[in-house]
Amino acid sequence: MKSLLNQVTRRCYSSTVARKWIYAKTFKGEPTHANFRLETESLPVLRDGEFLAEAEYLSVDPYMRPYMMAYPEGSLMIGGQVARVTQSANQQFPVGASIFGQFGWRTHTVCNPDSLEKDKPYVLPEFGDLPQSLGVGVLGMPGNTAYFGLQELCQPKAGETVVVSGAAGAVGSLVGQIAKILGCRAVGIAGSDAKCEWLQRIGFDSAINYKSGNVYADLKKAAPKGVDCYFDNVGGQITEIVLKQMNLYGRVAVCGAISNYNSEVAKVTDPQRQFVFKQLRMEGFLVWRWNDRWLEGIEANLRWIREGKLAYEETVTEGFDKMPDAFIDMLRGGNTGKAIVKV
Amino acid sequence: MKSLLNQVTRRCYSSTVARKWIYAKTFKGEPTHANFRLETESLPVLRDGEFLAEAEYLSVDPYMRPYMMAYPEGSLMIGGQVARVTQSANQQFPVGASIFGQFGWRTHTVCNPDSLEKDKPYVLPEFGDLPQSLGVGVLGMPGNTAYFGLQELCQPKAGETVVVSGAAGAVGSLVGQIAKILGCRAVGIAGSDAKCEWLQRIGFDSAINYKSGNVYADLKKAAPKGVDCYFDNVGGQITEIVLKQMNLYGRVAVCGAISNYNSEVAKVTDPQRQFVFKQLRMEGFLVWRWNDRWLEGIEANLRWIREGKLAYEETVTEGFDKMPDAFIDMLRGGNTGKAIVKV
Repeated sequence: MKSLLNQVTRRCYSSTVARKWIYAKTFKGEPTHANFRLETESLPVLRDGEFLAEAEYLSVDPYMRPYMMAYPEGSLMIGGQVARVTQSANQQFPVGASIFGQFGWRTHTVCNPDSLEKDKPYVLPEFGDLPQSLGVGVLGMPGNTAYFGLQELCQPKAGETVVVSGAAGAVGSLVGQIAKILGCRAVGIAGSDAKCEWLQRIGFDSAINYKSGNVYADLKKAAPKGVDCYFDNVGGQITEIVLKQMNLYGRVAVCGAISNYNSEVAKVTDPQRQFVFKQLRMEGFLVWRWNDRWLEGIEANLRWIREGKLAYEETVTEGFDKMPDAFIDMLRGGNTGKAIVKV
Repeated sequence: MKSLLNQVTRRCYSSTVARKWIYAKTFKGEPTHANFRLETESLPVLRDGEFLAEAEYLSVDPYMRPYMMAYPEGSLMIGGQVARVTQSANQQFPVGASIFGQFGWRTHTVCNPDSLEKDKPYVLPEFGDLPQSLGVGVLGMPGNTAYFGLQELCQPKAGETVVVSGAAGAVGSLVGQIAKILGCRAVGIAGSDAKCEWLQRIGFDSAINYKSGNVYADLKKAAPKGVDCYFDNVGGQITEIVLKQMNLYGRVAVCGAISNYNSEVAKVTDPQRQFVFKQLRMEGFLVWRWNDRWLEGIEANLRWIREGKLAYEETVTEGFDKMPDAFIDMLRGGNTGKAIVKV
């Protein structure tokens, strides 16, 4: 087998020059042509286990803007592509195979999948008469982002209202349609009338142009029963508005923060980015939600006190007449431990 | 039985005057004495099923500040109390029983528990030699808030780092100690050196005085392995700082927003309050978290396309030379659906 592969390698070898886009200058604000530099690279002869892939469709995605900030100038621009295997010394990736690979912004790539710990390339499933370009779209990362993000994190139930921001984008347009498939009301927020019309054509119940209306009022109309699920691609002001109209036990999936990807200030201060990149979970609560387990809590805390594991302190104000004083003082942080009033 | 109760009722009757604090004027900014008015009320004769309770310890809590905004002027101030039953026509609440009730700011209360749909009073469990006042503290709502909120929403694992804000308060001081019981590192953030010293005495590994130091730098030192769980009572700037130091898959339980309860602006704009009062859940994600189910997503989306349920659109830029143009245009929202480059 090994010798056969060597033979294949030698037979397939031909000198190939790749073109590639280099991250020439660190992004600052909106990207410009000055941030990029086109270079060429002569590719080496294939070795056992390697294949040569020729890019057919390359993806440009919002995440590239914040992600590249972690790379030094001179790095290859990151990104996925649908490519065709044109030479191969790897039986899993035969010549002619249509594949997806995280190869970056380059036309030709020599790859040994076994040497990669993550971002392994894969042969695309059979798409039939559908275009291979969908491998970087609805049948690739953006499609899976919508499919998993909405279902796993928002857990939408039939009859609920799902709102998606960045709705006319690769991910958002799928989120609203999947919400419809699941029996939900789907409301999209996008940046032009043309986009909004398209969203309604593909099945959204309602679409809001955030550049031309009053988003708060428009959302009130579009989601008369309030918002149960919010799939957020943008962050910022739109998110603040949607949060105000969410229902009890609403769920927010934070997919992106496009509204601030070009901002230098937000990079440092915006919690939205922390949520995306660290996959944080935040949940608000009122203790009454555990009313049916109330005594369990009291008994556990009582046991811990008796075992000497839980100390408590009380800040006691004497006299019912002093209720307002105790309250005002507590809000100023005057208490240590529990603030109470002894009648 | 009914006649016996009637007898009891009649025997126990005596004219009782309650004192009560009225919400005289809507809060604006920090509460003052002008917001409250003390009144008296003559209580009626007990009827079947009712009891008379005399307040012993009343609770003052941060939640009262935002909650009262929903009540009209002239309402009774809301709140819980530990009370003693002094007259009774209800066998579940016999004379002498020590109970907890959501009776509001009042000295005497006539109550029929069966007529209440929620906030039902309950007889306190046996505290032994511990003070009954704990029924509004560690053995009541604040204790359960710490017990359930930390464990159910933060799901702390031994060895993880738990940070709590408002750490010297009724809830926060318990959260850090429960974190220690669970084998975590506990870091508290509070507003004075005295409070911080107390926190360390009761077992916190570290305590940060947010009024006198650099919280970001102090937290870096106190949580050298980053923050896995954050139990948040305050919101605002402290929360922004903690979020920046959270680890991958960090969990935030949003218990309160004390930092802005007195603010009129925040009332309208602060998402923190939305999270608390509507018990919202927000989770950030990167699609790679479902790598092991990747093909499931592609196949489901492919099936929906074939069934005519999922439409897609591509914005195609021709030519590898145009990669930067396609990227810049996509970030400006120039695309509808997926932005790709055809080589």
